[in-house]
Amino acid sequence: MSAISALWNADSIAVVGATERPGALGRKPMDFLLRHGYKGRILPINPRGGEILGVPAYASLKEAPGPIDLALIMVGADRVAGAVDDCVEADIPLAIIASSGFAETGADGAALQDEIVARARAGGLRLIGPNCIGAVSFNNRVLATFSPLFGAESVPFEPGTLGFVSQSGALGFGAASLALQRGLRPGWVVSTGNDADVTALEVLRELAQEPECQGLLGYLEDVPDLDTLRALSASGKPVALLKSGRTEAGGRAAASHTGALATDDRVLDAALHQLGIARVDDIDELLDAAAAFEVPLRPKGPRVAVVTTSGGSGILAADAIEDSGLQLSRLSPQSIAALTEIVPPFGAVDNPVDITATVLSDPTLFDRSLDVLLADDSVDIIIACFCVMAGPDVQKAVTALSKAARKGGKPILVARTGADFLAPDAPAMLRDAQLPDYPTPARALKAAAALWQVSRPRPDTHRDAVTAPLPAPAPQATEPQLKQLLATAGITVPKGRTARDADDAAALVRELGGRAVLKAVVPGLLHKSEAGGVRVGVTEQQAPAAFADLAALGGEVLVEELAPDGIEALVGVRTSPLGTVLTVGLGGIFTEVLDDVAHRVLPLPDGEAERMISELRAAALLRGARGTAELDTAALADLLYRLSDAIRDWPGEFELDLNPVRVLPHGAIVLDSAFSAADTPAH
Amino acid sequence: MSAISALWNADSIAVVGATERPGALGRKPMDFLLRHGYKGRILPINPRGGEILGVPAYASLKEAPGPIDLALIMVGADRVAGAVDDCVEADIPLAIIASSGFAETGADGAALQDEIVARARAGGLRLIGPNCIGAVSFNNRVLATFSPLFGAESVPFEPGTLGFVSQSGALGFGAASLALQRGLRPGWVVSTGNDADVTALEVLRELAQEPECQGLLGYLEDVPDLDTLRALSASGKPVALLKSGRTEAGGRAAASHTGALATDDRVLDAALHQLGIARVDDIDELLDAAAAFEVPLRPKGPRVAVVTTSGGSGILAADAIEDSGLQLSRLSPQSIAALTEIVPPFGAVDNPVDITATVLSDPTLFDRSLDVLLADDSVDIIIACFCVMAGPDVQKAVTALSKAARKGGKPILVARTGADFLAPDAPAMLRDAQLPDYPTPARALKAAAALWQVSRPRPDTHRDAVTAPLPAPAPQATEPQLKQLLATAGITVPKGRTARDADDAAALVRELGGRAVLKAVVPGLLHKSEAGGVRVGVTEQQAPAAFADLAALGGEVLVEELAPDGIEALVGVRTSPLGTVLTVGLGGIFTEVLDDVAHRVLPLPDGEAERMISELRAAALLRGARGTAELDTAALADLLYRLSDAIRDWPGEFELDLNPVRVLPHGAIVLDSAFSAADTPAH
Repeated sequence: MSAISALWNADSIAVVGATERPGALGRKPMDFLLRHGYKGRILPINPRGGEILGVPAYASLKEAPGPIDLALIMVGADRVAGAVDDCVEADIPLAIIASSGFAETGADGAALQDEIVARARAGGLRLIGPNCIGAVSFNNRVLATFSPLFGAESVPFEPGTLGFVSQSGALGFGAASLALQRGLRPGWVVSTGNDADVTALEVLRELAQEPECQGLLGYLEDVPDLDTLRALSASGKPVALLKSGRTEAGGRAAASHTGALATDDRVLDAALHQLGIARVDDIDELLDAAAAFEVPLRPKGPRVAVVTTSGGSGILAADAIEDSGLQLSRLSPQSIAALTEIVPPFGAVDNPVDITATVLSDPTLFDRSLDVLLADDSVDIIIACFCVMAGPDVQKAVTALSKAARKGGKPILVARTGADFLAPDAPAMLRDAQLPDYPTPARALKAAAALWQVSRPRPDTHRDAVTAPLPAPAPQATEPQLKQLLATAGITVPKGRTARDADDAAALVRELGGRAVLKAVVPGLLHKSEAGGVRVGVTEQQAPAAFADLAALGGEVLVEELAPDGIEALVGVRTSPLGTVLTVGLGGIFTEVLDDVAHRVLPLPDGEAERMISELRAAALLRGARGTAELDTAALADLLYRLSDAIRDWPGEFELDLNPVRVLPHGAIVLDSAFSAADTPAH
Repeated sequence: MSAISALWNADSIAVVGATERPGALGRKPMDFLLRHGYKGRILPINPRGGEILGVPAYASLKEAPGPIDLALIMVGADRVAGAVDDCVEADIPLAIIASSGFAETGADGAALQDEIVARARAGGLRLIGPNCIGAVSFNNRVLATFSPLFGAESVPFEPGTLGFVSQSGALGFGAASLALQRGLRPGWVVSTGNDADVTALEVLRELAQEPECQGLLGYLEDVPDLDTLRALSASGKPVALLKSGRTEAGGRAAASHTGALATDDRVLDAALHQLGIARVDDIDELLDAAAAFEVPLRPKGPRVAVVTTSGGSGILAADAIEDSGLQLSRLSPQSIAALTEIVPPFGAVDNPVDITATVLSDPTLFDRSLDVLLADDSVDIIIACFCVMAGPDVQKAVTALSKAARKGGKPILVARTGADFLAPDAPAMLRDAQLPDYPTPARALKAAAALWQVSRPRPDTHRDAVTAPLPAPAPQATEPQLKQLLATAGITVPKGRTARDADDAAALVRELGGRAVLKAVVPGLLHKSEAGGVRVGVTEQQAPAAFADLAALGGEVLVEELAPDGIEALVGVRTSPLGTVLTVGLGGIFTEVLDDVAHRVLPLPDGEAERMISELRAAALLRGARGTAELDTAALADLLYRLSDAIRDWPGEFELDLNPVRVLPHGAIVLDSAFSAADTPAH
């Protein structure tokens, strides 16, 4: 048993700072553990000793009888270090530091936080928090928390299969209360606050090992760690993450709140997509995904069939399918024929299938059309929409849907656009039938998209290398040096070399076909073009003068062949907190302005370079838009694979830009390149 | 009183097809009118006469005592035409045709629908429907509907201020039930089905005239009519529209459902934006906007301040502000200083203002910080976030918020991420305090964005013309003819003219500076460049041969000056169901591939051309990205105004493309132009 799993497996819990005083935070965990029937030993720690709510209290952890699996520390920030020492001495494997007053308050608090983490690590104690609201297991009735949620009179408290971990305690338990309200079954809710030692992601990874856990939800403010993300993904459990601080404004707010570092949010998007983890943008979406995760069926593809009692819902569903990146199934001719027999003439048999309000008089319309869709191999996911039906009509519809759901094989999600007062039993009936339900088609479809994201076959990360790893360049490597290195990896660079003198430059131009490019090679000269350091189309006659001009900039002069016409791409690799990131964009200056780029965290699995390129909106240009020639997409993909393999062993932090790469009708050629390593300024 | 307003003002309602048979649809309106206390006369029409639910019935409309303000027709499709005739004869101004079996079933049904509309129009009768579920006024207790909603035992039935009109009856009443569930107050719900005569938009326009109406919501499948949209906008009432069929998949589904025509959805976006009508993408968003509309306060700008008890909610709010196009306020130094006195040290005083869970022990934190934000001129909208607070804590928070809200002046929206069971009184308390509440910050912010969209100062549509209207070109006008026309409007075109012969071409090249462009002018030759019909940089020497080549294509040869370097834009005007649309994009081939264009429905108000250009992602290129020269944005804007004025009186359907227009460091010049008019194929 890992230390972290004490959050839900603890057989004994010490509450440091426990009190009987009404209204005090230190009373709440005692109240909750007693009220909700925790079966293990409760050890309140209070200098006064005696009894707290009838439970014997101890003046200190030292005096409390061991073994203690979990300590919940609720004392003032100034007394936390002492409590941590006491935990170490008492051989406790895990402590939750609920107390505030650490990194979230500024530099002094951050130092204090570092101090307690150091003491804990030295003593083999893992810490959750500080600045958190604690943890609860609905399954084992461990309530190491002071969240007001568990004091609410009518809080549902039943075993569940969803694990939810949140850096923000208030938001986490708030979202958990909304989950309970809509009939979801959280099994574990953990808040991790400042993530000083154990991170939210580590708790998720640990929860993924629990056999009862069927789905994981996370609210994160810090950039997650790639290795932990990989382990979480490898667990095979469906995971949805809400990572805040996505935008510039949000990132600034996050930094002021937790000191979380901003990263390029799109790199995180790319990493999560690669790992088959769903990313959501709001609490609603997180819970909507959770409702789909609770049902163990997984789709085999992204093709959605819609069956609806209202044409309007069908259209909204079709819009949402396109928005969410899923596909509206093309039903088989057999299905269309079968549906024509079932659906009334004023309905629609093509997807979305509109069975109309006639379902009110004939509820078998629902199960008969669902049978057709369940049998159609071009359908992976089914969305059933109905509106405003009341009382017995809803019961009939749900019975029909359940009948289809029981046949299994394909996830069925329900968009029921109607108030609960129309059919108070409907939510429970749908839940019992394992039919997740949503108030609108769009929300059902977003959940379906999350479900497909966690169910997609993961790309095999192995790929045979196309080129051997290269040594890293020197931090101040020049353009010719970089190009030579790239050529070693089989990446095409222009023919040419640095010229010895003006005559040599002219001779080189002749050799290269009578017109060439001359470029100044001056270490530290960024923005060569803007500095007048590039001359394109120089003739043999013009070469000596051009050489003199460029040499005057203080470095060498590179003479290169003119590249044929094509389209300019940018390709880059850089290290990031999420691993080494490969980036590709198309369209020269437009790439930057229009931000049309694709990212991947390396290594690059087979087929992934082609997928990156096809994701670009500008990819149409490669296929020969507007009568221009078709360009060599395969050569650009090959360049991406070669680059990924070549840089594999480069140490430290670095950034290598190939910009522009010109994609030609045959081949792709690197026209310029720049490198910077840690401690050299990025350009 | 207009005919349409009988939907809510009728003093007498005939129910054609009324019956006492339990379960029959024809019984429902009778049940509802009696149950909910309609004060006017109810006139059931049934061939058997007698009494229905104790109300005297009449064998036909002819026998029923007039005047009758509204007829609800619920007979089979084959009997509708007769019922329409009877309404005309009985001098009834408005009939709701609930019956299905019309345009939604195919060609025969469409013919029948045309027939009843023609009969009604000839007789001065307006029609709602067919294929609809009817209408309800919560204020006057007019229930001309068979929606099961009004049979539900616990349906709330109180006066309200929101008008909701939906083409889809099921979706409309389903959404209305969700509105009631969350405590919103719909005053009118109307379903208009096939919109054969009166459209959903006309009903909205009519509702906008009701003094009690404070906000309007619409669900539309058909493309709305621009004049009615303008009238709706001119009413000054806040309007949110959900228009389905936005996407390709949705558009196809809509066409199969109602035969609604697809249009460029982004033109509708542009039109709604110009008219200050909020567009939403889901039923949730529609109701979220409605909750904000119910409170009569309007923001004076888009700058949002967030006050939160949870750092996490603050970050999510900041993300959502950026997503929704609102702005995170920069608080004044005075506000920051004042907040520093109020907010605990581990909170945050910069926006988002994090007052932390300390608010539990000191609820005045809420009202004191709100006072600061209410007084800060850099704040237009306030979002108050809290999570998971329970019972008395929520009451205290809401009391503090109400205190601030009562001071008024700025809309305050609440994001309360916590279940209702934590504080069952909270929804009613917030409603009474006129504080719309939402389960997540993102949803509150989307509602705030809708609120700002309907509150923005509308651009003054008057602008002094910069050029006189021009006559329309001939349908097959050639490039030189079009350029001449454009020049008349003060739009810059290249110097040059068609050459008489090879010698003339050479002479022209010399006149134009020694290098020029030669272009084939061949009526019907589309894609000139691809056909080899354009030569750029032709010298005097090369001119005769180039002339011969181009003349061989079968038309004239245009010789034009070479334009200086710049960036290529495309500018177009075309007629559409929503009016004449002006389009601008930047970046030549990239414009199309990346779809980076801005649309406006003409006329173009003052300043709007500049706003269109600044909306383009590629606008950065005009400002001189990456060391390139700054380009003449003002000249491009001037071209847009001139073009708008020039084409003002052109009749019929047409499309005029100026593509490319080259934007120069000084000026903007039309390099090519093409025109097509109705019945000539678009290119």
